[in-house]
Amino acid sequence: MLVAESTLRSFTQNIFLAMGCSEEHAVLAADVLLQADLRGIDSHGVARLVGYVRLWGKKRINAKPNITIVHETPTTATVDGDAGLGLVVTPFAMRLAIQKAEQYGSGWVAVRNSNHFGIAGYHALMAVEKDMIGFAMTNASPLVAPTFSNERLLGTNPMCYAFPAGKYPPVVVDMATSAAANGKLEIAQRKGVQVPEGWIQDANGNYTTDPHALKNGGSLLPLGGDREHGSHKGFGLSATVDILSAVLSGANYGPWVPPFVAFLEPSESPVGLGIGHFVGAMRVDGFRPVEEFKTHLDNWISRFKSASTTDPDQKVIIPGEPELEAEAERRANGIPIVDAVLADLNGLAKRFGIAKV
Amino acid sequence: MLVAESTLRSFTQNIFLAMGCSEEHAVLAADVLLQADLRGIDSHGVARLVGYVRLWGKKRINAKPNITIVHETPTTATVDGDAGLGLVVTPFAMRLAIQKAEQYGSGWVAVRNSNHFGIAGYHALMAVEKDMIGFAMTNASPLVAPTFSNERLLGTNPMCYAFPAGKYPPVVVDMATSAAANGKLEIAQRKGVQVPEGWIQDANGNYTTDPHALKNGGSLLPLGGDREHGSHKGFGLSATVDILSAVLSGANYGPWVPPFVAFLEPSESPVGLGIGHFVGAMRVDGFRPVEEFKTHLDNWISRFKSASTTDPDQKVIIPGEPELEAEAERRANGIPIVDAVLADLNGLAKRFGIAKV
Repeated sequence: MLVAESTLRSFTQNIFLAMGCSEEHAVLAADVLLQADLRGIDSHGVARLVGYVRLWGKKRINAKPNITIVHETPTTATVDGDAGLGLVVTPFAMRLAIQKAEQYGSGWVAVRNSNHFGIAGYHALMAVEKDMIGFAMTNASPLVAPTFSNERLLGTNPMCYAFPAGKYPPVVVDMATSAAANGKLEIAQRKGVQVPEGWIQDANGNYTTDPHALKNGGSLLPLGGDREHGSHKGFGLSATVDILSAVLSGANYGPWVPPFVAFLEPSESPVGLGIGHFVGAMRVDGFRPVEEFKTHLDNWISRFKSASTTDPDQKVIIPGEPELEAEAERRANGIPIVDAVLADLNGLAKRFGIAKV
Repeated sequence: MLVAESTLRSFTQNIFLAMGCSEEHAVLAADVLLQADLRGIDSHGVARLVGYVRLWGKKRINAKPNITIVHETPTTATVDGDAGLGLVVTPFAMRLAIQKAEQYGSGWVAVRNSNHFGIAGYHALMAVEKDMIGFAMTNASPLVAPTFSNERLLGTNPMCYAFPAGKYPPVVVDMATSAAANGKLEIAQRKGVQVPEGWIQDANGNYTTDPHALKNGGSLLPLGGDREHGSHKGFGLSATVDILSAVLSGANYGPWVPPFVAFLEPSESPVGLGIGHFVGAMRVDGFRPVEEFKTHLDNWISRFKSASTTDPDQKVIIPGEPELEAEAERRANGIPIVDAVLADLNGLAKRFGIAKV
């Protein structure tokens, strides 16, 4: 079913309002989710709404957080999200990073005591709006095993870097540090198809193509897949995200990260508060004039877009391009919502006594 | 042949002095190279010395650079390396980043008009010495094709993140953003063995296991190997390194990056100056007290080191651990130098009239 953006947006705002969020937070949280749906990242949009509500129902998400700065220098800070939605805590942190960058050239904020923050790209793009380079990363529920292990110790821990271009749209590198994001497994599960070797392993640490292997003690693999193909690099990147997001902020890290699914309980001996994020902003004109940078980035983009390919049906895709194409198409034609998600959303409507989608 | 560190160090200093470097620069450049050899990264140590000398011979490396800050805010700067050795230009930039971090919490320096900077880890670890988190990256000669392309447009573009721990050594994630570093190909070429699928492609964009394929128009693949296994992520990381190191600093980027090998000429229509780097430092106590951070990072390391494995011969390797083990062993027993490198070094000794290794 295709749903108009405006319909889905007001529905989502109403759910957040029904949870007790302020008007400002409901509008912001809905904006983060809608941005994911518009950009074609369906796993991180309204499909997650029921998950947030379940965590709120278990009092693991605080709808009225008192978000505070707990530690600060001119260009660094640690923010405590008071168990609020990552969807509102992270924009708070990013605004702080941008303010610091406006004054001193760069700003970096680590966040603890937060929850799932939606798509990293949303937050990084806040900096791009100001002609800054944006960074955003988060740790997440443990699903990924480090190289050589069969234990789930890391999340899909995404990192995002976003750069403002001139005549072209921004370059947005927004990627899980696992070989495949969990959303892709969910799609394979729904379709009943196998997944490629190199995405997941079973409980014994052997490659499997069964997308249900995670439920039976299996784990996702780091980017690279195995040691020979560089999985230690995917592990290293994921470790970097975990350390910056949580060891630095005072959040939970590694296997202690609270699970996103409400039916799994958080650790009884946490090592920090909630989950952690790390965001940053650097002024382009802290390094060279903005127009010079944009002219060269346009040249970079143009050169890569025109790179030779041997298959005439393929072209080099600039990071961020597919999401923008999805956005143009979905703004025009509506956002596709699969039946299972629609049922979830209308279940929420019934529960809160608001209009269905 | 095993050579004592001190022998190799004074030999290397003498070569740099013979090129016309100052005493200070010769000592520093030798330190960067020896650190690579000690840490077991043979491809980036004294094996490169003959390459630097050849570039100097072609007047592409300036032994007496006037390194300058060309643009600056309290926490950002752009440095022009005056075509100097990256081995001395990058520590200059890192010292500047550290100074800014001492004053404002963080410091970020983009570098243009430089040359090959050795191992990224050396520079990032300068920050760790000061209880800061260190970042270092560089672009490099184009050898890697973006996803879907058969054109060499990117270097192996390494990125490094380094974190100070407490009772454990620092965590150092130092990785090429390609599936395999070029050094691994060189080893396979020397041994006359095939390489795994997923490392390189031939001129038509097909996987090949021939380590000589690069010479015949082939290219290295980004981390991930192919699209299905996330090569667009490796491409995105490599793009990030290229943009931060060169589009931001005013260096050459993409296919315009001057080749490291002196027998290939740089582009006749450069888009910037030399090659580019990007380094940064963030004070740990800009976010939380240093001892707290170190205690939690120790806990992180300890948990990952004890992760379960199904193969009793394997264990989870903390990023940076293998390099430290190599260093302990090589400090004690000497640095292994293969015959080809020894011949190169003694060729340099003869040319400059200094004592052989």
